[in-house]
Amino acid sequence: MPRAPRIAIDPALVENYVLSLARHGEYAGTGVWRTVYSPEWVAAADQYARWCEEAGLSVRRDAVGNVWGRLEGREGGKAIVSGSHIDTQCPGGRYDGALGALAGLIAIKALKEQFGPPRRPLEAVALCEEESSRFPAAEFWGSRAVVGLVPPELPDQLVAYEGETMSQAMRAIGLDPAAIASARRDDIAAFVELHIEQGPILEKADLPVAVVDAITGIRHYLVELTGESNHAGAFPMDARRDPMAGFAEIAGGLIATAHRMGRPAVTTIGRVQVEPNFPAIVPRKVTFTVDARHPDPLERAALYARHESLMREVAARRGLDIHWEVYMDLPPCPADPALVATFAAAAREQDIAFATMASGAVHDAQQMAAIAPMVMLFVRSKDGRSHTPEEFSSVDDMVAGIRLLAAGLYALAY
Amino acid sequence: MPRAPRIAIDPALVENYVLSLARHGEYAGTGVWRTVYSPEWVAAADQYARWCEEAGLSVRRDAVGNVWGRLEGREGGKAIVSGSHIDTQCPGGRYDGALGALAGLIAIKALKEQFGPPRRPLEAVALCEEESSRFPAAEFWGSRAVVGLVPPELPDQLVAYEGETMSQAMRAIGLDPAAIASARRDDIAAFVELHIEQGPILEKADLPVAVVDAITGIRHYLVELTGESNHAGAFPMDARRDPMAGFAEIAGGLIATAHRMGRPAVTTIGRVQVEPNFPAIVPRKVTFTVDARHPDPLERAALYARHESLMREVAARRGLDIHWEVYMDLPPCPADPALVATFAAAAREQDIAFATMASGAVHDAQQMAAIAPMVMLFVRSKDGRSHTPEEFSSVDDMVAGIRLLAAGLYALAY
Repeated sequence: MPRAPRIAIDPALVENYVLSLARHGEYAGTGVWRTVYSPEWVAAADQYARWCEEAGLSVRRDAVGNVWGRLEGREGGKAIVSGSHIDTQCPGGRYDGALGALAGLIAIKALKEQFGPPRRPLEAVALCEEESSRFPAAEFWGSRAVVGLVPPELPDQLVAYEGETMSQAMRAIGLDPAAIASARRDDIAAFVELHIEQGPILEKADLPVAVVDAITGIRHYLVELTGESNHAGAFPMDARRDPMAGFAEIAGGLIATAHRMGRPAVTTIGRVQVEPNFPAIVPRKVTFTVDARHPDPLERAALYARHESLMREVAARRGLDIHWEVYMDLPPCPADPALVATFAAAAREQDIAFATMASGAVHDAQQMAAIAPMVMLFVRSKDGRSHTPEEFSSVDDMVAGIRLLAAGLYALAY
Repeated sequence: MPRAPRIAIDPALVENYVLSLARHGEYAGTGVWRTVYSPEWVAAADQYARWCEEAGLSVRRDAVGNVWGRLEGREGGKAIVSGSHIDTQCPGGRYDGALGALAGLIAIKALKEQFGPPRRPLEAVALCEEESSRFPAAEFWGSRAVVGLVPPELPDQLVAYEGETMSQAMRAIGLDPAAIASARRDDIAAFVELHIEQGPILEKADLPVAVVDAITGIRHYLVELTGESNHAGAFPMDARRDPMAGFAEIAGGLIATAHRMGRPAVTTIGRVQVEPNFPAIVPRKVTFTVDARHPDPLERAALYARHESLMREVAARRGLDIHWEVYMDLPPCPADPALVATFAAAAREQDIAFATMASGAVHDAQQMAAIAPMVMLFVRSKDGRSHTPEEFSSVDDMVAGIRLLAAGLYALAY
């Protein structure tokens, strides 16, 4: 693969594109509220398409509204693709997703301007949906359509928080849900997704970017712990079957287990519901979620086994009934080792200091891995924040990330 | 004081009165749903008044609707009073409150029938309200009026769950809120409240009744524990300020502290709210209540000091902000030692096996203690249950309790 000369990325252009795209759905100053197929989303997709045209890319919109900007390659063949999603949380910020969609476009535009047409085709993509912020079960809607994982009946089954179906939302902006199968691609040679880190690891290491060598595996448990509701005054401690006491021991134990296992293991108890939830009544039931993640398959299995063993042990010892269901279970997704090596080499060539790390969050790249080798790049997040108007990445860091992306795309396509 | 001959209490009458009163507000089989001043409550109060008249007692209803049945004493003087409340939880059962109101009536009726007029006046009372089940801040409405602790502006300020004021609810059944001060009594020599235990202590000890020597002190804390909300995948365990981890340690620690202190210390975490309460987000804030009780003033102070120290220590060590407010703080209320001795002696004379214990629940007797010496009697509760249609006390146990009540009243009034 060719060694890339130093690639120039214009900081003013990066800042202008990020801030301009964020105006579509602007919310509370630095926030963005842009759910899939909303008027703000339509405006953002149109803006992305115009920028692609201005850069001399040929624009195509597929059946779910993903926007593709293509630079043909002299030798043809499968495309090298880079992008991310342009929908947001409610509200999210300016960078999560959007930066990756813009990075693909800016990198290809810079390569075209500085090095002319590539050997192999390059494409930038703005994927339509990843956040499940309008439809709770839509996650990865854009990339799932590209890899052919949207069954034909699904658009009528997915219901938004506001009650409309996915089919209705698509038709309202002129998309035909019956055509979704046509969005499938089998001509992608590699997928590269740049994204903000969403965590503090790069900030603490004082590094601008990372090459991501794996996306973590995630399991979500919904656990019901049931004891006996009693009077908070008249029932002695030694006679109680108090699910709150069991929950406290389990929550503390699971969190300590992941902590002691060390990075990148993480376990989160994010949601708790207590019944009946009155101050002077010993609860009858505590229902809670466990989100536990590890990118290594064996370590992941060990983490889950320890969690389940602890939950069973505490419940049995305290005379509580325990029941759980696993309602989400995504296996770890390793990045393609050759792509990891290509981007690590590109970073060294471009004198960009970087880390190699796993992603603890899920991403479109995980879906795209079903049809193409993938790799991700992370850009440092201020305070590790995301999914909030406060998320922030500096122009310098974004430029470093896009330079690395462009250098890697150069190595793959020129 | 005179030694009572064996007093006969008719089991059929006890069962009939309990079941008949429970018909007013009957709910889901064995349940009762009877909030203060509701049509069911009016019917129950009327029924109680009729039974008092049938027993030859003179009936008086005071300004808040407490129903008093009086048996005059040959020598006059202050009255010996026994009763409890006739309102219920939503739904409650047949015994909590109602049994105590009926016990006073049945005991005095039996004494009158078996021993004629007493030396000192005896009164049975059905107090109108104790449960706060219609007005969240009305607690002890009946007994607070009797002891003169209802300020004149309060009836207009108390708002029901359904939105009406206490004044409106009173006027709707012909009571005048402006007359509440007239309900105050200063002519009560002793107040005796029989109540179901609401806990499992008597059941586990295989005893039908207890003489209650103190009502516990209660403090309610509302605690806010604040950390930093972060992405559940991208934020490493070692970098989190997770209030759920702190809550788990605090809840487990407080419960263990009360347990290790031993009976009658109790601590309950009954209510928890998590923000934002999503499975894949490390929470920003956990808000919870702490209900901690002890009937001994010094032990109680030690329990609270240990709780507060543990909460501060955990929060500081984990980098969490902690803030609490004490929104309820009732001091322990000792029973009158002479009355405790009188009823303990009466139990021995009547060959009724009994325990002496503290009440872990609050009761009208606690209010009445402001104007008169008081004592309570407990009747065994099946499985320690209360505030539920499943609460149950056997006829044999109720008869034992009412026999003990009658024997004590005999000692005091004959």
